[in-house]
Amino acid sequence: MANFKGHALPGTFFFLFGFWWSVKYPLQHSWKKRQHGTRQSLPLFFNRIDLIEGSLKIFFAFVGIMAEQFVPDGPHAHLFNGAWVKLMNWQHSTMYLFFGISGIADALSMSSLPVPAGLDRLGLSLALFVEGFLFYFHLHNRTALDQHIHSLLLVAVFGGAASTILEAFLRDNCLLEVFRSSLAILQGTWFYQIGFVLYPLNGDMWEEEDHGNIMFITMCFCWHYAVALLIVGVNYSTVWWITNRFGVKQRMDLEIGLRKTTHLDSSSQKALLQESDEE
Amino acid sequence: MANFKGHALPGTFFFLFGFWWSVKYPLQHSWKKRQHGTRQSLPLFFNRIDLIEGSLKIFFAFVGIMAEQFVPDGPHAHLFNGAWVKLMNWQHSTMYLFFGISGIADALSMSSLPVPAGLDRLGLSLALFVEGFLFYFHLHNRTALDQHIHSLLLVAVFGGAASTILEAFLRDNCLLEVFRSSLAILQGTWFYQIGFVLYPLNGDMWEEEDHGNIMFITMCFCWHYAVALLIVGVNYSTVWWITNRFGVKQRMDLEIGLRKTTHLDSSSQKALLQESDEE
Amino acid sequence: MANFKGHALPGTFFFLFGFWWSVKYPLQHSWKKRQHGTRQSLPLFFNRIDLIEGSLKIFFAFVGIMAEQFVPDGPHAHLFNGAWVKLMNWQHSTMYLFFGISGIADALSMSSLPVPAGLDRLGLSLALFVEGFLFYFHLHNRTALDQHIHSLLLVAVFGGAASTILEAFLRDNCLLEVFRSSLAILQGTWFYQIGFVLYPLNGDMWEEEDHGNIMFITMCFCWHYAVALLIVGVNYSTVWWITNRFGVKQRMDLEIGLRKTTHLDSSSQKALLQESDEE
Amino acid sequence: MANFKGHALPGTFFFLFGFWWSVKYPLQHSWKKRQHGTRQSLPLFFNRIDLIEGSLKIFFAFVGIMAEQFVPDGPHAHLFNGAWVKLMNWQHSTMYLFFGISGIADALSMSSLPVPAGLDRLGLSLALFVEGFLFYFHLHNRTALDQHIHSLLLVAVFGGAASTILEAFLRDNCLLEVFRSSLAILQGTWFYQIGFVLYPLNGDMWEEEDHGNIMFITMCFCWHYAVALLIVGVNYSTVWWITNRFGVKQRMDLEIGLRKTTHLDSSSQKALLQESDEE
Repeated sequence: MANFKGHALPGTFFFLFGFWWSVKYPLQHSWKKRQHGTRQSLPLFFNRIDLIEGSLKIFFAFVGIMAEQFVPDGPHAHLFNGAWVKLMNWQHSTMYLFFGISGIADALSMSSLPVPAGLDRLGLSLALFVEGFLFYFHLHNRTALDQHIHSLLLVAVFGGAASTILEAFLRDNCLLEVFRSSLAILQGTWFYQIGFVLYPLNGDMWEEEDHGNIMFITMCFCWHYAVALLIVGVNYSTVWWITNRFGVKQRMDLEIGLRKTTHLDSSSQKALLQESDEE
Repeated sequence: MANFKGHALPGTFFFLFGFWWSVKYPLQHSWKKRQHGTRQSLPLFFNRIDLIEGSLKIFFAFVGIMAEQFVPDGPHAHLFNGAWVKLMNWQHSTMYLFFGISGIADALSMSSLPVPAGLDRLGLSLALFVEGFLFYFHLHNRTALDQHIHSLLLVAVFGGAASTILEAFLRDNCLLEVFRSSLAILQGTWFYQIGFVLYPLNGDMWEEEDHGNIMFITMCFCWHYAVALLIVGVNYSTVWWITNRFGVKQRMDLEIGLRKTTHLDSSSQKALLQESDEE
Repeated sequence: MANFKGHALPGTFFFLFGFWWSVKYPLQHSWKKRQHGTRQSLPLFFNRIDLIEGSLKIFFAFVGIMAEQFVPDGPHAHLFNGAWVKLMNWQHSTMYLFFGISGIADALSMSSLPVPAGLDRLGLSLALFVEGFLFYFHLHNRTALDQHIHSLLLVAVFGGAASTILEAFLRDNCLLEVFRSSLAILQGTWFYQIGFVLYPLNGDMWEEEDHGNIMFITMCFCWHYAVALLIVGVNYSTVWWITNRFGVKQRMDLEIGLRKTTHLDSSSQKALLQESDEE
Repeated sequence: MANFKGHALPGTFFFLFGFWWSVKYPLQHSWKKRQHGTRQSLPLFFNRIDLIEGSLKIFFAFVGIMAEQFVPDGPHAHLFNGAWVKLMNWQHSTMYLFFGISGIADALSMSSLPVPAGLDRLGLSLALFVEGFLFYFHLHNRTALDQHIHSLLLVAVFGGAASTILEAFLRDNCLLEVFRSSLAILQGTWFYQIGFVLYPLNGDMWEEEDHGNIMFITMCFCWHYAVALLIVGVNYSTVWWITNRFGVKQRMDLEIGLRKTTHLDSSSQKALLQESDEE
C-alpha cells in the first residue's frame, strides 16, 4: 500500500498506542506510590486493561493481515505463481504477524500462567526488531530522499526495540516506559510525515535528490521528537495532578475498605512470592 | 562440504539442541518453583543431564572434526603443500573445535571444581561468536543470494552469542534461556533452508541475482523464527502442564522423603554459600 | 556560523560545564562520605546548585537559539521561501533546543515533583545524541580533513551520550560522573581545535587532503583527552584535599548543629522513601 | 618500527601481562574462597602486587615513549618542520602514554586515597580503546593482507576494552578477569604472528592479495585464541590445585593467628564500609 493511506494507518496505530502508554504508565506509578510498601499490588483493574491492550493488538494484527492480503490489488494469499506475488503486501503481513505474537505474549503475561517474567516486553521488542529488519531490506533501489526518510524511521524503530528489551530486565522502570511511549508517538507522527512527503496531498512532489531536503528532513525528525516529548510530558503531569487531587477522597475510601484490602494484599503477596520465584 | 548434506548436518544438530533446551529449561524452572525458598537445590538428576549434554557436545565436535578432515575429498590433516589445502574444511573443523571447547566448559561447570560462575555460557557464546566470525569472512566473492542467505544466518548466530553472554551475568533467567532455545531452532531450520535454496533437490536452481528472491528470503527468515517461537511455546506449555498434573503425587513423595531433603538442603546451602562467594 | 567564533562559542560552554562538573561531583561525593549512612541527605545547598545549573542551561539554550536566528545573516525565523532558508542555523537552533529540554529535565528532577528517577540524565543523553545525530548528517560533501575532524568530535559526543544514559540506571556512580566531565572538557577543547584548524588565525590554511594531517589530527584528539583527564584529576584531588582539611572544623559545627540536622535527616528520609518508591 | 622487532616487543609485553593476570586472579579468588564472609580482606600482599604491577606499567610506558622518540630513526621529540616528522613513532608514543595513564590509575586505586571505585579498570579500558582507535586509522592505504591481519588485532583490542569497562561495574567477577587474561595473551601472540607474516624471518614474503592467505589468517586467529584459552585454563587449574594442597597448613596458621585476623577484620570492615559509601 504505497500511498498516503498506507502510511497514515500504521502511523495512527503507533500514535494511539504511544499516547495511551503515556497515560497508563504514570497512572500505574502514581497508584503504586500512593500505597507505600506493597508495590506489586496493582488492582485487578490494571490487569484487565493490559489484557484488553493485548487483545486489541491481536485483533488489529489480524485485521492488518487480512487487509494486506485481500485488498483488491493484494496477493489474496497467493505467494508464488512463476514469480513472487506482491511481496510488499506479504512483508507487511509478516510485520503484523509479529505484532500479533507480541499481543499474545501480553495476554499470556497478564494471565495467571507461569510464563517467564518479561515475556511481554521481549515480544514487543521482537515485533519492533522484525519491523525494522524488514524495512531495512525494503529500502534498496529507492531515491535518496525516500531512503533517508525511511532510515530515520529505523532510528525510532530500533531505538524502541533496544529500550523495550531493556525493560525485560529492568521491569517497572518508569523512565524506560515513558521513553518507549515517546518513541512510539515519534514513530506514529513520522509515518504521517513520510506520507506527506512522498505522496503530497496537493500533488506537489518534493525534489527527491536535493541535499537541502535531506538536511531539512533530518532536522524535522528531531522536531517531531521534541513534540513527542512535549505530549508525553503533558500527559504525565496531567495524570499526576489528577491523581493527587482525587487522592484525598481515595485515601478515605481505603480506610473504610480496609478489611477488603488486607485480604487483597495477602493474595497479592502470594503473587509476589511466585513472581520472585519465577525471576 | 558445499552440498545439501553439508547444511543439513549442522542444521539437525542445532535444531535438536534448541528443541532439547526448550524442554530442559522449563523443566528446571518448574522444579524450582515447586520448591519455594531453596532455589539452587536442583536434584542431582539435572546435574547429570547437563553433564551428558556437555559430553555429547564434545563427542559431536570430535566426530565433526574427524569427518571434515577425513572425508574422501578432505584435507586429511594436511594444511599446506605449496598452496593452502581445503581451507573450507579446516574452517569447519575450527568451528567444531570451539563447540568442543564449549562442551568442556559445560562439563567443568557441572563438576565440583571451583570454576568461575558462568563459564559454560561464556564457552557457548565464544563458540557461536567464532562460528559467526568465520562465516562472515567466508562470504567474499559469492552471488548476491548466497551472500544474503548466509548473512541472515549471522543474525541468528550473533543474536545467540549476545544473548548467551548476557546469561553469564543474569544466570537462571528463564526468558533468556527460552530466547536462546528459539534462536538455536531458528539456526537449525535456517541451515536446512539454505540447503534447499542453494542445492535444490529437484535441481531447479534459483535466480541468484533476482531482487524478488532476496526480498522473499528475508521474509522467509522471519517466518522461520515465528515457527521457532511456536515450537518453543508448545514445549514450554506442555512441560508446565505435565509437571502440574503430576505435581500432586510428587508433593506427597516430598513429605515422606522430608528427612532426606532436609539433609540435602543443608548441603545445597553450603553450595549456595560457596557460589555466592565465587561470584 | 562557519567561522572560528562559531566553534569557540560552543567549545567554551562545553569546557565550562565539564570543568564545573569535575568540581561539583567530587564535592558531592566527599560530602556523602563524611556522613556515613545517610547517603541521600545532601544539603539543600547542592539542590540549589543543580537548580541553577538547569536554569543556566535553559537560559544559554534560549540565547543560542535567538543568536542563531537573528544574527545579521541568520534566517530570522523564516524556514522556507521557495528554497530552505539557512538550514545550518536551523540545525544549530535544534541542537540548542534539545539542550534547553535537558535543562528543563534537570530543573524538574531537582523540584519536589514526582518525576521518574534519572530523567535529568536521559535529557542530557538525548541532547548529546541529537547533537551527534545532526552533526553526522552535516558532514556530507566536505573535504577529507573537515569530515575527519568532525567525526572525531562525534566520538566525544556519542561517548558522552552513551555514558550519560548509563548514569540514568547506575545513579550516583562517581566513576561515570567523572568520565562524563572528562568527555565534556574534551568536546570543549576539540571545538577550539576544529576552529584553529579550519579557520586558522594566521590565515595559513591546512592541506585538506593530506593523509599526514589526518593522522596527526587523530593523534592530537588523544592528546586533548589526556589533557582533559589531567584537568579532571587535578580538580578531583584539589576538592578532596580541601574538604579533608576543612572537614575537622565542619564536624565540630555538625555536633553543635545536631538538633537541626536530626530534623533535616527525618525530612530527607521521607525524600529517600519517596524516591525509592519512585524507582 | 615497522619490522619484526617492532611487533615482537609489544607482543611480549601483552603476553607477559596476560600470563601474569591468569595466575594472579585465580590466586586472589582462591584466597577469598578460603576466608568465607570477609570477602574484601585480601592480605596486604595482593595490594603490594597490584602496586608493583601499576609501577611496572608506568615504567614500561616511559621506556616505550623514550625508545620510540630517541631510536636513531626516531623523531627525537620533533613534531613539525614543514611536514609532520615520523608520525608513526608519535602514534606509538601516544599509545604508550595511555598505558602509562592506566598504570597511574592502578597505583591510585591501590593507594588509600578516595579515588572512585573501578578507576583502574576504566584506565585500562581507555588505554586499550586508544590503542585500537589509533590502529584503526593506521590502516589506510595498505595491502589487503596487512589490513586484514591488523583488523583481526582490533577484535582482540576492542574486545578487551569492552570486557574491561564491564569490570568497572561488575567488580571482582572472576569470569571477566579470566576472559581479559585470555584476550591479552591472544593480543600478545597475535603481534608475533603479524611480525612473522609481514616480516618473515626466512625472507619468503607472503602473497599479499591472495584470498586463501586471508582465509587462513582468519582461521589462524581462532587457533591463537584456542591456545590462549588453553594457557589460561592450565594456569587456573594449577593455581587452584596448589592452593588446595597447601591450604591445610594455611588453615592451621590461621587458627593460631586468630587474634591478629580479628583485628584485621575490623579494619577491613571499615574499609568495606567506606568503599560501599564510595560506590
